[in-house]
Amino acid sequence: GLEDEIRKIAIPMRGRMVHAVDGNVSFQPYGKDDEAIYSVSRGGINMKLMDLAEQQEGVQLYFNHRCDHVDLEKGLMTFETTAGKTEIQSDLIFGADGAFSALRHAMQFTDRFDYSQTYIEHSYKELCIEANADGSFKMEKNALHIWPRKNFMLIALPNLDGSFTCTLFFQFGGPLSFTSIKTESDCENFFKTYFPEAIELIPEYKQQFFSNPTSSLHTVRCYPWVYKNKAALIGDAAHAIVPFFGQGMNCGFEDCTVLNELMTNYNENWDEVLPRFQQMRKPNADAIAELALNNFIEMRDLVADPVFLRKKQIEKMVAKKFPDRFIPPYSMVSFNHIPYSEALSKGSRYEEMLSRLYEIENLENVFDSEAVQQIIESYL
Amino acid sequence: GLEDEIRKIAIPMRGRMVHAVDGNVSFQPYGKDDEAIYSVSRGGINMKLMDLAEQQEGVQLYFNHRCDHVDLEKGLMTFETTAGKTEIQSDLIFGADGAFSALRHAMQFTDRFDYSQTYIEHSYKELCIEANADGSFKMEKNALHIWPRKNFMLIALPNLDGSFTCTLFFQFGGPLSFTSIKTESDCENFFKTYFPEAIELIPEYKQQFFSNPTSSLHTVRCYPWVYKNKAALIGDAAHAIVPFFGQGMNCGFEDCTVLNELMTNYNENWDEVLPRFQQMRKPNADAIAELALNNFIEMRDLVADPVFLRKKQIEKMVAKKFPDRFIPPYSMVSFNHIPYSEALSKGSRYEEMLSRLYEIENLENVFDSEAVQQIIESYL
Repeated sequence: GLEDEIRKIAIPMRGRMVHAVDGNVSFQPYGKDDEAIYSVSRGGINMKLMDLAEQQEGVQLYFNHRCDHVDLEKGLMTFETTAGKTEIQSDLIFGADGAFSALRHAMQFTDRFDYSQTYIEHSYKELCIEANADGSFKMEKNALHIWPRKNFMLIALPNLDGSFTCTLFFQFGGPLSFTSIKTESDCENFFKTYFPEAIELIPEYKQQFFSNPTSSLHTVRCYPWVYKNKAALIGDAAHAIVPFFGQGMNCGFEDCTVLNELMTNYNENWDEVLPRFQQMRKPNADAIAELALNNFIEMRDLVADPVFLRKKQIEKMVAKKFPDRFIPPYSMVSFNHIPYSEALSKGSRYEEMLSRLYEIENLENVFDSEAVQQIIESYL
Repeated sequence: GLEDEIRKIAIPMRGRMVHAVDGNVSFQPYGKDDEAIYSVSRGGINMKLMDLAEQQEGVQLYFNHRCDHVDLEKGLMTFETTAGKTEIQSDLIFGADGAFSALRHAMQFTDRFDYSQTYIEHSYKELCIEANADGSFKMEKNALHIWPRKNFMLIALPNLDGSFTCTLFFQFGGPLSFTSIKTESDCENFFKTYFPEAIELIPEYKQQFFSNPTSSLHTVRCYPWVYKNKAALIGDAAHAIVPFFGQGMNCGFEDCTVLNELMTNYNENWDEVLPRFQQMRKPNADAIAELALNNFIEMRDLVADPVFLRKKQIEKMVAKKFPDRFIPPYSMVSFNHIPYSEALSKGSRYEEMLSRLYEIENLENVFDSEAVQQIIESYL
C-alpha cells in the first residue's frame, strides 16, 4: 500500500532530454508511452517511508544513534548518542547502514571476507536551477535533462517546487577537471564553452560552483554478506553502486522483497533464509554495479552518438516485431522485475545483435525478410 | 654488507623436486647451474635484520607496541603496550606494518582511496618433516619439494636443523577440502590416496593435521599509498600477495631499494620522493600479485603436465640460442632485477611464442632454420 503514497511525491520522467552545445534539444523516450522513471527527493521518500513504517507496522525509530562498534560474536552494537554511549545486544543484526556501513566494517576483519571499494575518476557537484517566479519549471518537467560532453556531463532532475537539481559529473583531476578550475574566470570559460545554456538557467552558477562541495563516487563489492547467521548486510551496505542507472535504492528494495519472500517460504528460519538470501542477491548486486558504471558512458557520451541513436531505432523495430520475446535491456532494469544479472547477460547478446543489424543496408526495407528475422531469432 | 650475513642462514634450492603419486621423483632446475632460490626461516631473517639495523645503523626498535589508531592529519599514532597506551607524533609515518596494516586501515576512510582484499579459495596448513636421528635431511636438501595434485599440493622447504617445513595448500570448502576431512579416517584416506610418501615422512601426520591451524591467503591491492606526503605504505601494507612465487618479502625489499634511490636523487625532499615512489612501484606490485597467483597453478598442476614440461625444454633451447636477448620469465623475477611488470608482460608474449614452437614437428631438427629463428625473433 505504499506505492500510492510515494507516487504523490514523485515526478515521472518519460525520457532523456539531450542538450547539445549549440542549444539543440532532442527527446529520447525511455520506454513505451506510459513507462517512466521517477524523480523523488531523497529526504522526501525517507520521511514518507519512516512515517509509513511507524504508522502501519509499529516500527520504532531512533535518531542520532551512530554505530561506532560491533562485536559480531556477541551481537553487541555500541552507539554514540547525544546522551553518551549506549549498547544494544541482538541475536540477529541487519546492517542497512549504507555505503560506509559500520557492520560491514566489523565483518571486514573476519576470515575470508572479500571486500573492495573502487572510486571512479569522476567526482560530482550539485547546482540548482531555481523555479520561475511563479513557481513554474524553467524546462520540460517530465524528462531527465542531460548535457552530454563525452567525458563529462551535466544532468538535471525536476523537484516538486519547480526547481531542478543539477549535477555536474566531471573528472576529479587532470588538465580539464574540478582541480583545474581554480578561478572565477576558469569557471566562466568552462561553462561558456561547454554549458552556455546553464549560464542562463543558473545565473549564480559561479557562486554555486565554488561554495558547493565536490564529492566522490565509488562502488562497494563484498562477500559474504552474512556472518554466522547472526548478522547480515543489506542494501548499500552490501553493494553500494554509482548513481548512473538510478537503481541504488531500487536494488535495496529488491533485497527486501527477496528477503521477505524467503522469510515466508522458510518460516523465518534464519539458517535457511540468510544463506539463500546472499546467494540469490550477490550475482544481481554485481550485475547492477556493472550496469551502473556502463550507463555513465551511455549518458555522458553515447546519447549524442549517431551510431548509438541508430541502434536505439533498430532496437525499437525489434521490440515492435517481437513484443513478447524481446525487451530492451534498459526496460528490463527499469520497467520490469527481471533480475539485473539477466539484463546484463542479455544486454551484451543484444548489443551484438544490434551491431550486426546496424551493418545491414536499407534495413527498413529488408527487416521482414527471412534472412534478417533469422539473425534476430538467433539472439532471442 | 647484509648479504653475507643472511646467506649464512639461507639454504639454496636449485630447482623443484616433483613427487608423483606413484613415488616417481623428477628434478626441474629453476635456472642455470649456479642460480637458486633460498629457504630461510622467517624468524631467523627477522632477527638478523633487526640485529644488523641496530648495530650498523643505530635504529631503535620497540616491541609489544600494537598500533591501534592513526590520526593522519596530526601524524598521531596510538600504541597499545604492556604498560598501557602511548602516543607518538611524527611528521612522516611509514607504515611497514604488514598485510593487516593499521596505517592502511586509517587511509581506507580517506576520500578516493581504492582498496581490495581478495581471498583465494585455498587455505593452508603447515606440517613438519623432522630431521633424521643424526640431524641429516630425509630428502634432497637443495630443492623445493612439490607433490602436485592438480587442484591442491603439498610442498616442503628445508630448514637449517635438518627438518622440512611442509605446507598443504588445499581447498577451504567443498567435497574434497579442509572442511570435508573431519575424522582420523578421512585424514588417513586422504593422505593414503594423494600423499602416501608423506605418511612415511611424517609418521604423526594425523596428529599434526588436526592440531595445526588452517590459515587463509589473500591479496591486498590499494592506491594511493601516500597520504598528503605525511604518511606512506610500504611492503605488505601496500601490496600483500599470495606466497606462491616466494616474492612477498623480496617485493618489500625492492620498495626499499627504490625509495632509497629516490631519497638520494631528490635529496630527501619528500614532496618529490613520495609521489614518484608510489607511481613507480604500483605497477610492479600489481604485476607480482598476478604472477604469484599464476604460479600457484604452475606449482600445483603444470609441473606435472607433459605439455608444460616440453615448453620448458623449448624455453631452454631459446635461452641457449639467444643468451643476451631472452631471459625466461621465472628467471627475470627470481634471478634478475627486471621489474615485475616487465616479467609479466614479456611472460605472456613468450608464452605465445612457446605455444607456436610447441606445434612444430621435429623442432630439434629445424630449430636453427631461418623460419624458426624468424618466429623467435618476432617475439624478442
